[in-house]
Formats: sequence, C-alpha cells, structure tokens
Amino acid sequence: MLKDGERLEDLQYKGLRVIQNDEGFRFGTDSVLLAGFVRATPREKAVDLGSGTGVIAILASARTGAHFTAVEIQPEQCSMARRSMELNGLDIPVIEADMRTVHDKLGRGAFDVAAVNPPYYPASGGAVSQKGAEGFVGAATHDIYCTMDEVAESASRLLKYGGRLYICCPAARLAELFNALGREDLEPKRLRMVAARADKAPYLALIEAKKGAKPGLIWEKQLVINGEDGAYTDEVKAIYHIDEE
Amino acid sequence: MLKDGERLEDLQYKGLRVIQNDEGFRFGTDSVLLAGFVRATPREKAVDLGSGTGVIAILASARTGAHFTAVEIQPEQCSMARRSMELNGLDIPVIEADMRTVHDKLGRGAFDVAAVNPPYYPASGGAVSQKGAEGFVGAATHDIYCTMDEVAESASRLLKYGGRLYICCPAARLAELFNALGREDLEPKRLRMVAARADKAPYLALIEAKKGAKPGLIWEKQLVINGEDGAYTDEVKAIYHIDEE
Repeated sequence: MLKDGERLEDLQYKGLRVIQNDEGFRFGTDSVLLAGFVRATPREKAVDLGSGTGVIAILASARTGAHFTAVEIQPEQCSMARRSMELNGLDIPVIEADMRTVHDKLGRGAFDVAAVNPPYYPASGGAVSQKGAEGFVGAATHDIYCTMDEVAESASRLLKYGGRLYICCPAARLAELFNALGREDLEPKRLRMVAARADKAPYLALIEAKKGAKPGLIWEKQLVINGEDGAYTDEVKAIYHIDEE
Repeated sequence: MLKDGERLEDLQYKGLRVIQNDEGFRFGTDSVLLAGFVRATPREKAVDLGSGTGVIAILASARTGAHFTAVEIQPEQCSMARRSMELNGLDIPVIEADMRTVHDKLGRGAFDVAAVNPPYYPASGGAVSQKGAEGFVGAATHDIYCTMDEVAESASRLLKYGGRLYICCPAARLAELFNALGREDLEPKRLRMVAARADKAPYLALIEAKKGAKPGLIWEKQLVINGEDGAYTDEVKAIYHIDEE
C-alpha cells in the first residue's frame, strides 16, 4: 500500500490513518482545526477542494457523516489520497482535477458544503522553497496553481445557494480573503481566530461563509493552542481527539 | 457656555472636557478606544468624520499633536463641539457639512489621517429608537445619513495616497467594512479586536487602513476591557488615563 518515501500517519480518531510523503506537503495543524470547524449533516454533499492527502475530507466526513468528494490537482497526492480512502474503508471519491474547471465534471451548485485549506502565499511574494517551485510542496503552500480569488470563485460555483464554505487563512490575509469571498457572494457568517498562546496575537482564521447570505459575522471565542504550561489546551486536545485514544 | 440639557464631561486627560447633551448621542467607550488607537504626528493633517461631540478629535489631537479638523452634519452637535474646542483652547475647526460632499470644501487628498466612528447599523435592519428615527440620536448610531460604503468613499477621497484611516466597527460587521474599504483602495493594515472579558468573543474592531497599500494585516493582541475582578484592565486604564489623574 505504501510507496517509497511514504508513511502512514495515525489520525487518532476512529482508527483513521492517512498516507503522507515526507518529501511532499504534509497536513498541518490548520487542516485538523479546519476539519474540526466544519459543520455538516449526514444528508449533505461536501467537497474538499485542493484536498492534498485528503485529511480534511477524511476527518470531517468521519465526524459529520457528510458525503465528501475530494478534488486535487497533483497526481502523486491523488494516488496517496485514494489509497488512504481504501485503507480507511471510506467511500470518498478523489478527483484529479483543477479546482478552476472541476465544475464541468461535478456540476455547478452541486454541493451543500465546501472545505478548503487554500494556498498560503501570493505567487508574487514570499519565498517559494527550492522544492516547492517545481514540485508539489509549492502547490500546496503557495498560490502557484490558483489564487485566493480563484479558490473563492471555484467554491462559489460548486456551492448551491445557501451552501457553506469552510476555509482557513493566515490572520494577516483575512482582509484579502473577505474581499475575495465578497466578490463571489460568499458572506462570512462565523469566524474563529486561532492563537498559539492566550497572550499572543492570532495567526490563523477559521471562516464559515454562506453563499447569498446577508452580512453579519458571529465571532467565536479565540482558540488557543498551547496553555501556560506549553501543552495543548483541553479544547485543542478535544479537536485532536487526544483523550479519546 | 452650556445650553439647557447640556453638561460638561471631564475627559480625565490634560484637563480636557467635552460638552454633551443628555438627550443626544453621547460618546462611548468605542470613541475613546479609537482615539487611543490613532497614530499620527504633529506635522500631519487629520480629519474626524462624523465627529459628533468632537471627542475623538479632542483626545487624538491632544495625544498626537496632529492638526485636526472635525466634520459633523448636525447643527446641534457642531454647536456643542465648537464650544468644547473653545473651552479647551483647541484650534480645531468644526465644519458643519455632509461627509459625502465635504471634499468640495476641504479638498481631495488633503489629509494624512482620517478618523471615524461610523454609524453602527444598516438603515435597513435593526431597531431605530423613537428619538433616533427623527433626531440626531439616530444619525450617530444608524446609517441614516450615510452608509458604510459612503463613509469609506468619503475617507478615501479626503486622504492622500498613503494616508491612514482609523475606524471602528462592531465585530459582526468586519467583513462588510473590509469589503467597503477594499472598494475604495483602503487596505486594512492593523487590527485590534476588543472583548469585554478575556473569555468572551470580541465585540468591537479597531482598524487602521492605508490608502493604496498592499494587502497584509497585522493583528494586535486582543484588548480586554474588564479583568476577572470586573474592574478595567490596566491597558484600558492607560487608554482612559485613569492613573494619570
């Protein structure tokens, strides 16, 4: 099941595991937090855009029961994600496609829910790693394959009216993201900021946006990763299901 | 100096006072916090849009030394603000004008800094108080005289390229504000959320936006109003200059 350089990561939840490649992009805390932020019901159809290893689709489908489809542009990541789905006995199709055109395959307005942990840096700025410039590290951490505007456009096209987008972004890019969402009629409705410690400024934003909704943003209490003792806070432990094992 | 129904409020800073009318809109915590959030130098020209009693112009000019002009549409508030300036010996002109057209008088791009504590509720929603619907209470707390878009447009017209806007808004309206600012080429650069207590979600946002700047938002540590003992936190005391008296 594993190819050279790949290894199996235990997701510490319902026995789920995910295949990762040490050379490639590995899922991070933000994906786990975003998966925990998703609200969906077992009757809903959901799409994970730019799914990478598939970790968000795996965790969010296991927790909510929603019917997920994963969309990923990179063949290596699709291969790993497909094998992870098989390994976990999950019926989550992994579509190898560009999120900018995947509506041709999946249909406009076909989903109740979209989840996306989008590329992090604008293509024009920030240092793209050596490996990243040509390989799939770059695709997952930089706007090489699509911009924030394109992510918003893609999500909006796939969502039905009233559908919800779950997306995260660095705190520093929240204004850009809100602008991109606004242009696509995706109205931010719920927000949770994430800070490494209670006395630090937040570094990450988790956002729920609703297609066609009226303005009005509910702020949740800030999520703090590490307590004063440096260990995970109880809330983060709960999201990681650390106490359930 | 005082008319019927007016009284003098001690600002607890450098002996400054402001005239208020118990029947009208009184300045609140948000104006004091916004005045404390303004960054300006003694060489800069600043405008307080929708200045009401003039409290932001008074406090921010006293602290920064910037040359403020106040713009207010309501004659009663202008009258009070002018007498407050005189009382404090401050050379702050109070212009009775609509912020949507005041650039005809003050000039486009004439200011380095703009400060505005804008109307709080969209004209279409929320309950407008009896008094507010017809009087000046409504003008200061509701979008009766101008919308958030118009506030952003007015500030952008008055600011020079690279000029800074200091604005506050309810946390629930941050996405709307970011969209309005984005349409006017005002890029949010610094943000501070305000929460009543450390364990509550924030209710207010203080924003610094820069005209023509590139995206990239610096989040400051959240400002907490009340400590666990219910009293003002040291930081709020410092903004209110409570310990200086």
